[in-house]
Amino acid sequence: MIKIEILSQGEELLTGQVVDTNASWLSDELVRMGLTITRHTTVGDDKGDLVAVLKEIAVRADGCLCTGGLGPTVDDLTAEAVAEAFALPLKLDTTALAQIEGFFEHRGQPMPASNRKQALLPTTATRLDNLCGTAPGFSLEHTGCWFGFMPGVPYEMKQLFNNAIRPVFLQRFPERLKSLVIIKTLGLGESDLQDRIQSIAIPNGVRLGFLTAPEGNQIKLLFDADFPQGRAQGLIADFKNQLGASVFSVTDDRSYQQTVYDVVGEQLINKGLTLAVLETLTQGEIASQCLGKPWLLSAVYCQDLIQLARFIGMDYLAKNSDKAWCQLAQNSAEVVRRKAKSDYGLAQLCFNNKIDGSPARGTIYTALVTATTAISFIDQVGGSLRRQQRQSALKAFDRLRIFLQENN
Amino acid sequence: MIKIEILSQGEELLTGQVVDTNASWLSDELVRMGLTITRHTTVGDDKGDLVAVLKEIAVRADGCLCTGGLGPTVDDLTAEAVAEAFALPLKLDTTALAQIEGFFEHRGQPMPASNRKQALLPTTATRLDNLCGTAPGFSLEHTGCWFGFMPGVPYEMKQLFNNAIRPVFLQRFPERLKSLVIIKTLGLGESDLQDRIQSIAIPNGVRLGFLTAPEGNQIKLLFDADFPQGRAQGLIADFKNQLGASVFSVTDDRSYQQTVYDVVGEQLINKGLTLAVLETLTQGEIASQCLGKPWLLSAVYCQDLIQLARFIGMDYLAKNSDKAWCQLAQNSAEVVRRKAKSDYGLAQLCFNNKIDGSPARGTIYTALVTATTAISFIDQVGGSLRRQQRQSALKAFDRLRIFLQENN
Repeated sequence: MIKIEILSQGEELLTGQVVDTNASWLSDELVRMGLTITRHTTVGDDKGDLVAVLKEIAVRADGCLCTGGLGPTVDDLTAEAVAEAFALPLKLDTTALAQIEGFFEHRGQPMPASNRKQALLPTTATRLDNLCGTAPGFSLEHTGCWFGFMPGVPYEMKQLFNNAIRPVFLQRFPERLKSLVIIKTLGLGESDLQDRIQSIAIPNGVRLGFLTAPEGNQIKLLFDADFPQGRAQGLIADFKNQLGASVFSVTDDRSYQQTVYDVVGEQLINKGLTLAVLETLTQGEIASQCLGKPWLLSAVYCQDLIQLARFIGMDYLAKNSDKAWCQLAQNSAEVVRRKAKSDYGLAQLCFNNKIDGSPARGTIYTALVTATTAISFIDQVGGSLRRQQRQSALKAFDRLRIFLQENN
Repeated sequence: MIKIEILSQGEELLTGQVVDTNASWLSDELVRMGLTITRHTTVGDDKGDLVAVLKEIAVRADGCLCTGGLGPTVDDLTAEAVAEAFALPLKLDTTALAQIEGFFEHRGQPMPASNRKQALLPTTATRLDNLCGTAPGFSLEHTGCWFGFMPGVPYEMKQLFNNAIRPVFLQRFPERLKSLVIIKTLGLGESDLQDRIQSIAIPNGVRLGFLTAPEGNQIKLLFDADFPQGRAQGLIADFKNQLGASVFSVTDDRSYQQTVYDVVGEQLINKGLTLAVLETLTQGEIASQCLGKPWLLSAVYCQDLIQLARFIGMDYLAKNSDKAWCQLAQNSAEVVRRKAKSDYGLAQLCFNNKIDGSPARGTIYTALVTATTAISFIDQVGGSLRRQQRQSALKAFDRLRIFLQENN
């Protein structure tokens, strides 16, 4: 078995100030490539510790992905530690230096002297170009273990992995690619999900997993490379039948980050429709989740009924019944729709739990208005204010998703 | 120096399915106790790996906190691995068994047979009672290293640490509580920061660290318990002098999560001021960062100039100069301010990089309007659309922060 390890470097990880999301992202990618991760290690800014762990890993593993410690500051010690651990003195990589200088030139700034050290790479190391930051990565082999060193900044790390490391790994460790299918649901609790699918037999060659996530619970099916495709499709169909309308997405490796916002967005684009939104409890969450999407024309956040009355141009009136709240939500959706000249208007009203402190469980009124239809929904939401914000936004878009599906 | 390590056990951590928040929580607690964490290791459900890492740690460290692998299923191997690594055969702990039986009895269920194994502890181990789950923890010493084993369920782990491990650690490792001060900055790159403070001499008894974070770069000063407070204040003042207005927060242990939004919010509350916002590129980020804050009355997102013209009630006009853009931003800020009847209006205009795909570097026009003043600022923002969104929102609030400070 090929053994891959992950090494994270950074005092901020060891001291608990930052949660290491790089390691879990890399693990996830490696598992999809059919590789096995045997160990994660995190060390801080102590060169001795770093030298020791590099030597250990070189003996133990076939491949190691390292993140962090490539910055310009004195506590960025990775290259020095590699030089010491594997007796590969640092030397200036002139291409790297030119890239770093170019990065600053592009920003109209002179390169600070401290950044020069980022161009010092261990002898025999291969430079891995960083297209979105100053520090290049590098790779080298020692006692049969292939090491890839990447910066700790997540988007730089991901870009380097995708462009420079994944291709090497696919060639060096030709494990057969398993295929992962993720079935994403909204609105079902973890035990409901379990109960609904317990009658489905999982054949050999398939590994079943669950993931409880704030954006909906997921079922993960990892198929061996030689698992017949027809049987895989049949199994996926069984899950979809058992789970019904709560399934909002069935994705494979390439689209596994698909959210309910993406699903709704695709449908809106296909139908050439635009949307305007009125937010209360969701307070910018809906707008933010639709970042850069051309179909979202505008979004308005109103803190309370007074602001809402000002915005939609009507007198402030306390609402005493669910029916009155639903009507107000529909009116609000129509106002944002008209103002933006969008096809759809979506409004979600919930004011009773907007208290800084311990939030109560609240009722949310969601309305969706088109040129010809107006519908509304009543839901409950609880938990921390941040959770209520996210859950309410998901609920609003899930309502929109089901409407789009039913009115196809 | 006392060396403490953390060992996390669980296949779901190694495969990236679950992010290890236990390790960062424990680290944070230990740092506040004045202890130094030298390494985190994560291994999966392989007994051989677990035995190997336990042996390594026993030689290397003075203390080790272990989480996970104490459950009832076959992949929970920690106790067996400890037994093998340290030659301490498992034996039934009758008190533990009674506790586990009691846990199920309390729920009106018979104890499943599989749970009996949770009462098997290595000979010479001390049981650590678990007050909120089935699995007891245990502790033992081997070659001078004290090991504490806890369940992986976060709230069970925290309860065990607080009740059973913290008191032991305080006695066994009587390090004195250090104090951590974090100086947070906005608008300075990592190397700028480094260059500005390089003239400051760091005395013995103080450890200097850096943290690059999307919400601003941070300087961390960890003071030994006996470091004179007057000298600490002097050193902090030196840093503030060198860094100038870019410092938005100087926090201690208890408030280290303070953001620029919190700092602005405190000032608005102290002055009894309210705010309305117009967002473009930030698209809900500002509203969302101010979740539940009573001083944010409303926020509007407009996708483009057409939507903005509709919202502020003026004809669409392309803007060809920075001056015209700044004027439009001020007009927009005044419209949201008037509409919401808030004290301040904040508008930030940036439309040229709202393209789904690879975003360009763009110019942002930020305007702040009060009853008596209207000011505007021009900044540049680059990177991914998500980064631009967050950076623009931070920039807008940083401008507001500096205005509030100067007009105190």
